[in-house]
Amino acid sequence: MKRTLGVCYYPEHWPETQWAEDAARMADIGLTWVRVGEFAWSRMEPEPGRMEWDWLDRAIGTLGAAGLKVVLGTPTATPPRWMLARHPDMLAVDVHGRTRGFGSRRHYCFSHDGYNAESARIVTLLAERYGRSPHVAAWQTDNEYACHDTVLSYSDAARRAFRDWLAQRYQSPEALNRAWGNVFWSMDYASFDEIDLPNLTVTEANPAHWMDFRRFSSDQVARFNRVQTDIIRRHSDAPIAHNYMGRITDFDHFAVGADLDIASWDAYPLGFLSDRLEAPAEHKRRFARQGDPDFQAFHHDLYRAVGRGRWWIMEQQPGPVNWAPHNPDPLPGMARLWAWEAFAHGAEAVCYFRWRQAPFAQEQMHAGLLRPDSAPAPAFHEAAQVAGELAGMDDVEPAAAPVALVFDYASAWAWATQPQGRDFDYFRLVFHLYKGLRRLGLNIDIIRPDTADLSPWRMVLAPGTATLSKPFLAALETYKGVSLIGPRSNSKTETLAIPVPLPPNLPGLACTVARVESLPPDLPVPLTGGGAFTFWREKCEAADVAETTADGWPALIGTGGMRYLAGWPDDAALDRMLSDLCGRAGIPVEPLPEGLRRRDTATTRFWFNYNPEPVTFAGRTLPAAGVLWEPLEP
Amino acid sequence: MKRTLGVCYYPEHWPETQWAEDAARMADIGLTWVRVGEFAWSRMEPEPGRMEWDWLDRAIGTLGAAGLKVVLGTPTATPPRWMLARHPDMLAVDVHGRTRGFGSRRHYCFSHDGYNAESARIVTLLAERYGRSPHVAAWQTDNEYACHDTVLSYSDAARRAFRDWLAQRYQSPEALNRAWGNVFWSMDYASFDEIDLPNLTVTEANPAHWMDFRRFSSDQVARFNRVQTDIIRRHSDAPIAHNYMGRITDFDHFAVGADLDIASWDAYPLGFLSDRLEAPAEHKRRFARQGDPDFQAFHHDLYRAVGRGRWWIMEQQPGPVNWAPHNPDPLPGMARLWAWEAFAHGAEAVCYFRWRQAPFAQEQMHAGLLRPDSAPAPAFHEAAQVAGELAGMDDVEPAAAPVALVFDYASAWAWATQPQGRDFDYFRLVFHLYKGLRRLGLNIDIIRPDTADLSPWRMVLAPGTATLSKPFLAALETYKGVSLIGPRSNSKTETLAIPVPLPPNLPGLACTVARVESLPPDLPVPLTGGGAFTFWREKCEAADVAETTADGWPALIGTGGMRYLAGWPDDAALDRMLSDLCGRAGIPVEPLPEGLRRRDTATTRFWFNYNPEPVTFAGRTLPAAGVLWEPLEP
Amino acid sequence: MKRTLGVCYYPEHWPETQWAEDAARMADIGLTWVRVGEFAWSRMEPEPGRMEWDWLDRAIGTLGAAGLKVVLGTPTATPPRWMLARHPDMLAVDVHGRTRGFGSRRHYCFSHDGYNAESARIVTLLAERYGRSPHVAAWQTDNEYACHDTVLSYSDAARRAFRDWLAQRYQSPEALNRAWGNVFWSMDYASFDEIDLPNLTVTEANPAHWMDFRRFSSDQVARFNRVQTDIIRRHSDAPIAHNYMGRITDFDHFAVGADLDIASWDAYPLGFLSDRLEAPAEHKRRFARQGDPDFQAFHHDLYRAVGRGRWWIMEQQPGPVNWAPHNPDPLPGMARLWAWEAFAHGAEAVCYFRWRQAPFAQEQMHAGLLRPDSAPAPAFHEAAQVAGELAGMDDVEPAAAPVALVFDYASAWAWATQPQGRDFDYFRLVFHLYKGLRRLGLNIDIIRPDTADLSPWRMVLAPGTATLSKPFLAALETYKGVSLIGPRSNSKTETLAIPVPLPPNLPGLACTVARVESLPPDLPVPLTGGGAFTFWREKCEAADVAETTADGWPALIGTGGMRYLAGWPDDAALDRMLSDLCGRAGIPVEPLPEGLRRRDTATTRFWFNYNPEPVTFAGRTLPAAGVLWEPLEP
Repeated sequence: MKRTLGVCYYPEHWPETQWAEDAARMADIGLTWVRVGEFAWSRMEPEPGRMEWDWLDRAIGTLGAAGLKVVLGTPTATPPRWMLARHPDMLAVDVHGRTRGFGSRRHYCFSHDGYNAESARIVTLLAERYGRSPHVAAWQTDNEYACHDTVLSYSDAARRAFRDWLAQRYQSPEALNRAWGNVFWSMDYASFDEIDLPNLTVTEANPAHWMDFRRFSSDQVARFNRVQTDIIRRHSDAPIAHNYMGRITDFDHFAVGADLDIASWDAYPLGFLSDRLEAPAEHKRRFARQGDPDFQAFHHDLYRAVGRGRWWIMEQQPGPVNWAPHNPDPLPGMARLWAWEAFAHGAEAVCYFRWRQAPFAQEQMHAGLLRPDSAPAPAFHEAAQVAGELAGMDDVEPAAAPVALVFDYASAWAWATQPQGRDFDYFRLVFHLYKGLRRLGLNIDIIRPDTADLSPWRMVLAPGTATLSKPFLAALETYKGVSLIGPRSNSKTETLAIPVPLPPNLPGLACTVARVESLPPDLPVPLTGGGAFTFWREKCEAADVAETTADGWPALIGTGGMRYLAGWPDDAALDRMLSDLCGRAGIPVEPLPEGLRRRDTATTRFWFNYNPEPVTFAGRTLPAAGVLWEPLEP
Repeated sequence: MKRTLGVCYYPEHWPETQWAEDAARMADIGLTWVRVGEFAWSRMEPEPGRMEWDWLDRAIGTLGAAGLKVVLGTPTATPPRWMLARHPDMLAVDVHGRTRGFGSRRHYCFSHDGYNAESARIVTLLAERYGRSPHVAAWQTDNEYACHDTVLSYSDAARRAFRDWLAQRYQSPEALNRAWGNVFWSMDYASFDEIDLPNLTVTEANPAHWMDFRRFSSDQVARFNRVQTDIIRRHSDAPIAHNYMGRITDFDHFAVGADLDIASWDAYPLGFLSDRLEAPAEHKRRFARQGDPDFQAFHHDLYRAVGRGRWWIMEQQPGPVNWAPHNPDPLPGMARLWAWEAFAHGAEAVCYFRWRQAPFAQEQMHAGLLRPDSAPAPAFHEAAQVAGELAGMDDVEPAAAPVALVFDYASAWAWATQPQGRDFDYFRLVFHLYKGLRRLGLNIDIIRPDTADLSPWRMVLAPGTATLSKPFLAALETYKGVSLIGPRSNSKTETLAIPVPLPPNLPGLACTVARVESLPPDLPVPLTGGGAFTFWREKCEAADVAETTADGWPALIGTGGMRYLAGWPDDAALDRMLSDLCGRAGIPVEPLPEGLRRRDTATTRFWFNYNPEPVTFAGRTLPAAGVLWEPLEP
Repeated sequence: MKRTLGVCYYPEHWPETQWAEDAARMADIGLTWVRVGEFAWSRMEPEPGRMEWDWLDRAIGTLGAAGLKVVLGTPTATPPRWMLARHPDMLAVDVHGRTRGFGSRRHYCFSHDGYNAESARIVTLLAERYGRSPHVAAWQTDNEYACHDTVLSYSDAARRAFRDWLAQRYQSPEALNRAWGNVFWSMDYASFDEIDLPNLTVTEANPAHWMDFRRFSSDQVARFNRVQTDIIRRHSDAPIAHNYMGRITDFDHFAVGADLDIASWDAYPLGFLSDRLEAPAEHKRRFARQGDPDFQAFHHDLYRAVGRGRWWIMEQQPGPVNWAPHNPDPLPGMARLWAWEAFAHGAEAVCYFRWRQAPFAQEQMHAGLLRPDSAPAPAFHEAAQVAGELAGMDDVEPAAAPVALVFDYASAWAWATQPQGRDFDYFRLVFHLYKGLRRLGLNIDIIRPDTADLSPWRMVLAPGTATLSKPFLAALETYKGVSLIGPRSNSKTETLAIPVPLPPNLPGLACTVARVESLPPDLPVPLTGGGAFTFWREKCEAADVAETTADGWPALIGTGGMRYLAGWPDDAALDRMLSDLCGRAGIPVEPLPEGLRRRDTATTRFWFNYNPEPVTFAGRTLPAAGVLWEPLEP
């Protein structure tokens, strides 16, 4: 497959006279895709029912005429102000009970029937008009579901829908009371209509209550999205994408992805490092202009799974952004490096956000490929360079990865509901293991929690998976490779109760978690083999112990292919354990220098230098922000 | 008196078929008491007026048949969901004005008349049914008053009741205006109906307003509790307890205690260390698995005073809990040490919380004596060991303590209202002095602020007592021992004004606090004798100065028996001053190694090693978490 | 002009029998002014329409009879409780949507028509009664506008008024949509009545929306104040002041000042250091008892500009205050030093706050010149000393300052709305440059942003001025001195958009800010000349570069008289650059030892030692808190 570049563009922001020149410049530097439309509802429909398509017809026509392919976004993330007159109660409500008002974006509650109907209406009109357009070659639904904490809404609409959802799920209040353990504090319900949302209780609500509310809320997102994809498919054959946002776990991306043709994500490496990464200050300082060396790769691998192989970057950071605590300028070369790393992980397309920096409104301090005065910004040239390099390169397909790592959104909800220790976060744990694998130079596949066939991988990891799925457990039973399960894996039922018999209940591994403890960061528990457990560890009763803590608790249970990890290893312990397990699994590893990363495709090995200075390895030197590719030795 | 052990049990959580075996195992390891019922309202009365007593009859019968004595709790901390249909406005309101909803516990406002009537109704029904039960040998009212910040409610019910309370107290708005100094910012009221609650004012409300609201709120708790004790006493001769929670000062525990036969408290040493202790990080790290060496003892001594000699631990931490920022596993032996320390301080009974870890709902991560699968958890064996040791031990009575320390809830309200410096907290100050006394190996009595006879003690301390009571001041006047008063003692009137003549107005001590200052933690004021004042100091005009600060302010005033302490001493200054004063009072002291503590009963000296490693003293070595007792030399 | 001292006094707080003695003591120590009345509405008008002037007549008479001159305050900062019955919706609403209730002060919304009428009514009555009083020699409007975050109100009244204000400003919704760039996220409005306040949006509201709301809110304060000054002037010839509060930028002090005769501010050096200063911990520790060495001077110079030369300190800290995180006692001598520093900067009067410490209500822990028992507090004697020193000193007029520094309230709003990096604060930036100038021993004038004549100064600085005014730009064009503009100056339009052509668009300086970046504090960018940029830097395209960063970006642009500063310099870089520029401007500098400051009047040089120990310079030693003055060499 030929990898391509693109850009996000807002014709409604600029004089029509400028469109043709913009389009020509896009084509000129080798861009293929241009995404439009996703925030333009007020210009498509200035008053209820009065549609204005002409400008969009012309914009798409102009872009198409320049040889560009259009990704058309549904504008449902930004309903116009008049919508509120029709549906005054469509707004979401925050956890404190405050209505989240008009004036920015994502101002709707997924559970509001009226707004759901409006969403279907505008998508129908859009798909009818552009479904057969020769220029519209892909679709995007809405924009960044969940961004700005918009999945969990505590509105009346959500309350009503949640009650219905619970009634469907449990059929009777008695069944719900049993499932949730409501006897605990006399919390029994006599009717579904007695059940409120779990916010604003005196102390924490029942974790089962929260867990079901999170499941319900995730379902509402998938349902909302499915309405759109169903409509679009009735009118268009072009593939449908959604642009997910980094490190967001409030809804099940796999569930939404099931209705998409392509998964895509919005990659802001510097913003994410500043805003969404737990790391030592020195690490954040070192990579402030490059981004964390693994954060992008993790999401690439995640969305490859969400998109069942097909995935894009829909928005690629081109320069400083406006929304993180600090917003530095990327090191020269990073806008190129990030794109190449995405391609190396299998991205079909990388679209920079945005074409021209808008000098007005909320994102005026967000860089583009062009400055507000239309002069090229640094990433303009880097994008052109990537386009040129792509043109000269053979098509490559992704390589097989030797290792699979489970990612499970429900586990993120489980541990957000019940962290048991201040530092226990699901994403943090999984990403911590991912980084350990990357430091060994490995290709990694992220897999769904219900993966039923593990045979493609020599090693499988499932850290912190609250409830292991039946298919996964069945697959484990016959798995010939090395598996590493835990900590905390399979320690909960679907309603966030502790199973009896006690966890982890793994097939063929005699192991019982008799006790768990969360630890402050300054109280690590040393391991006999080196390194330590931090944050979390478990006391297991087990016959077959591979390693213990210095104070004698089993740390790694199992000496065969299946292992249970009874704690949160620090870097030293993790590197040691993973190296050892890879050796047992027959996976060659190559510990990499700090900040250097590699990724293989089917025929090519890519090297990426995330360091702010050159790195020397294997007799070669890669400059700061440098990318190197070479044929894979057969 | 024979000391006993017990456990908290929730028959409604478990199949009835399991009850008999549970009871047999409890008896088998030597438990005497079993507490039941305090959260079971929805099972006692599933619908309004439809009572279901049969299961509770059988549960109590089963436990009694095994030889156990039952503590029966009133279930008023968890009104069922149907209660809200009857009393929609019964919920408390938080300081931000948000209603605190159903879905956990303690969801009621103490000032709501309707709920007060419901509380009386269920307690009457319970007392009528079980008041003469041969198995019910004690009662508990409600559960952990004030837990989850539930004393101060900003509801309409509270507002109405507060106005009535003020009208009773002041008789006329003019009197209130004068008492509060409402002229200050034109805050005069013309009618009690104009007075709102003190939350959500533009800047801070009048401190007198807050102080009266806190007094009122405390009174509401005592009134609520008294209704229950009055009812129970009409039907039962068994003693009545309430289970107080650690480091909670929002209501006057002495006032509630006046209506009880037994004070009890819920002792969670590790949770409290993680969640409710100001201490250097190294101290918290060192004692993370044992708890602070003095926190439990302080509460033991406090509740011995609240219970007028009779006190229990109603809930004893048996393993990791679920609610602190970090929840480590106790060091092996601590569940035994904690119990023995309670007995050494005079506890009649220590009940572990809870029998079996519940695998569901809010506290599923809270350990019990049994695991969820009914296998013994570590504390099961430690409890059995304590029971065995108790059986082999002679009964002992508490020893007299040479030192008394005043604890005054109103002072906690005063300094919470008007800290004047970020670090000034009443509990912290009193506990700081208590720790200093403990490090010297002393037995300590905590006493009420209105104690009228000080002759039992050779030394009396009253740090930070905002208003010294008339009886206490009268007692001081003739006191022959050594007294240490201050800092900040007697510096306020009952309505939180500054008295004129200026404080401290102590009988027989010429001393005037001319100025006070609060200090940032990094600005200690050295004392000439060593150590320093931190956080707070006062400039006194005094004739008789025992010690000064390095910059020449009097630090310790008085050279006779009565001393005024003009600042917050650090550990070094405190140890030095207390040693000196004990010498003057004829109290022998023995400075103890870090983490080692001792407590004498009438005939026995107990040693407790709170350290995570063995400690050697006086030629002996006590292991980590070790307890040692020996006959007191006569 | 003869400089004078005064004091704030609340006759309504004390028995009338005490007034005469108080007045006599004030006069006795040499005080000239006494401020009264500003919180006494409930005593002037106990019930709606029932006026009680007699007590105030007698109080003013008593003070006047002692030879004191009265500053009479309008009492509108504390409307009585009965006002709420007349205007239930007069209260402000906070950013979270909570009504800000009665019970302290400043409980009104500037936009409430009913309260505006009440304000006019009471001011009219007051002015009618006392406008010709022989003792009332000055007026104060209201009290500390903006204190307690009271400028921005999110009430219904504010919403209505804001819509009107927008309609006046933009004339049509289409014009507003264009100016704000509402097309950005479909935020277009069809009517002014659709526009809500910018709080509680899902993510941040349009910065133009915030900017206009801030402008509107500032206008409301000026309008409220102007009603009062207009009324007073109809009845009195005495000058009118308002007492501004330190480091408050929520409204345009120049706009309010335009309606005043005298600007005054309330100087609390220790409270401000503890509560409102970004500084290293060591700096805060060192100056905890003296205040920051430049914070007072900055405000003196600011209010000299706001008052067009006429300014006072209306409230001078006399001892510990009650409202900062920590409230230490001032070093002996500081109450004198602070007063002298104010006079050296041109203050006409310095009034201590307050005469006698009130033992009741909110400020009972705020020291006065007298203790609550009427004994002198330390500042009593220091005030008397200053009065004596003033009596023996020739009158002096302010000296000309060689340097001008622009202060622009709209820029504070701009960067509060759009900091782009967590540490970017306008006051902090301007004050940082001010401190650099002071360390060089300079007199500084703070000037309005629309200053049209720069010829009085040899050097002009305009850091962070979001939009340079037309008059200022015109003045720059012909300016012969040295100017230092930037960082971030002129980078925004009035509606907070980025201008195209890109900033800074300075006359005669070829420079384009192509990119900006905000930096975490631990990522400084070294400069070739020494020191570094921190927090913020810009990438400029410029021909004429005076200095670059170590990584090659222009740091200081321009080699002639006009310079653009492309980042936030640290102390080392700032001292170096300012010294160099002063040299070019022909301004002699004298780098001062830490904590020593100087200020010249027309004939006298003053030295102030802010250090807690003596400082030696030029062969002389000044004690801690010492003040020295000497004739200026001609």
